[in-house]
Amino acid sequence: MKLATVRLDDGRTTAVRIDGETAVRLDYPDVGRLLTLPDWRSVAESARGATLAVIDLSYAPLIPAPGKIACVGLNYRTHIQEMGRDLPRYPTLFTKYAETLVGAHDALRRPVETEAFDWEAELAVIVGAPVRRASESEAAEAIAGFAVFNDVTCRDWQFRTKEWMQGKNWEATSPLGPWLVTPDELPGGTRPALGIRTLVDGELMQQDTTGDLLFDPVDLVSYLSTMVTLVPGDVIATGTPGGVGHARTPARYLTPGQSVITEVDGLGRCENVVVADGGIS
Amino acid sequence: MKLATVRLDDGRTTAVRIDGETAVRLDYPDVGRLLTLPDWRSVAESARGATLAVIDLSYAPLIPAPGKIACVGLNYRTHIQEMGRDLPRYPTLFTKYAETLVGAHDALRRPVETEAFDWEAELAVIVGAPVRRASESEAAEAIAGFAVFNDVTCRDWQFRTKEWMQGKNWEATSPLGPWLVTPDELPGGTRPALGIRTLVDGELMQQDTTGDLLFDPVDLVSYLSTMVTLVPGDVIATGTPGGVGHARTPARYLTPGQSVITEVDGLGRCENVVVADGGIS
Repeated sequence: MKLATVRLDDGRTTAVRIDGETAVRLDYPDVGRLLTLPDWRSVAESARGATLAVIDLSYAPLIPAPGKIACVGLNYRTHIQEMGRDLPRYPTLFTKYAETLVGAHDALRRPVETEAFDWEAELAVIVGAPVRRASESEAAEAIAGFAVFNDVTCRDWQFRTKEWMQGKNWEATSPLGPWLVTPDELPGGTRPALGIRTLVDGELMQQDTTGDLLFDPVDLVSYLSTMVTLVPGDVIATGTPGGVGHARTPARYLTPGQSVITEVDGLGRCENVVVADGGIS
Repeated sequence: MKLATVRLDDGRTTAVRIDGETAVRLDYPDVGRLLTLPDWRSVAESARGATLAVIDLSYAPLIPAPGKIACVGLNYRTHIQEMGRDLPRYPTLFTKYAETLVGAHDALRRPVETEAFDWEAELAVIVGAPVRRASESEAAEAIAGFAVFNDVTCRDWQFRTKEWMQGKNWEATSPLGPWLVTPDELPGGTRPALGIRTLVDGELMQQDTTGDLLFDPVDLVSYLSTMVTLVPGDVIATGTPGGVGHARTPARYLTPGQSVITEVDGLGRCENVVVADGGIS
């Protein structure tokens, strides 16, 4: 099953189920609210409401206002090893605020304050049930599905201090979408093995498989839930493979007018154009 | 003016204005919701609703569900210098999730997974108006008031990786309260100079003045708003002075049954008893 949050002409949003070329409206304003129902799967599967044409959809952030976004640093095994590092014992975690999110086709707002606006294609896990101190099986059960995430980062701000927070929390910089795809539709299920890549103006910049994750979605749900109750609509971004602009020689960064595609096989793609934000208007 | 969020017998909460020994009920479930009104000051000042006795109040977290909590690392000038470090050019920022918060007199839940549960008395700034890329005067205007915060930290988890997030985000560990006090009631106003201290089982552990902050409340609102729109109810914890348990020789950590008082002159105190959380029940 594929679910999305889409914008309506009146400025509101609605959750939809996507069946091929048709989107069926659900009686919830977004996928986050839908997921708060304990029986969200059957509610979404059985909906027979009004329909929209998929080709006309305007995607909002899949979860417009997650209570929590947790992100993982170094997590692609091959990339860690090619950087000459030992595999870490624990995931490196940081957070983003909900205001960072944009929809799958929205503009990426490059702040005038950065000179180093960079891409990070990621597999996002969407939580579908409350869990605390989850065992492996509880963690797997709590995964509603997956989506594409681009953890766009202002590198100069990221490295102003040891904590990455201030490179990661710029408004309207991080696409989440276009759809949530449930684990039953994916090879590997709750530990999906999917091709992931980034293209900037059509040039391939990142390419890997989510099967290479050191800490996989089930591990991450379990680990994070040790600390804090995860609730429906929480988002975990699982880290990015090699090939970010900052690690290139010479470094490459995004500039206004460029198109960035981040995609994960089976989950669709985010395709976003960079626009200038701030400065003299 | 002093505002608080208090629990009612029916399980709900209400915002109140505290006038000496009397609390006047406001028609909002908590201070965060009240602050979303552009005219929250006059609404709160003019309220003439039902009253409660202050002595009977049960304090909920002052802002039960902030959209954002931003925290600052090293920020007390004297403490940075006594550690032999240079004064940093930028504030070190990290975040906490809303689930970490507890009320001013609630239990502090020490997770069974930590051996190093530590105190951090802090001055918290409560945002009262939306601001983005705020100038100094806009930042000062956007400060609704101040409260006491205890940024309780699991030091062993904090230092598992370079990012502090996982030491800082344990459920029900961080008191915020008891009241919001508006800047007009404080010496220094939006840059208040107030004594701050921590006592553990009555023993003085931290003592400093918020006048020693390197990045003061106005600086921090302006800096953070460069990245992202701050909105009413957002919380900025401004960092802790010297005297945390982890930096002592030998190190001192909190254990179940201990009482922790964090207080800021003019803002009252949080007084919390440590209880065990998790493990075999």
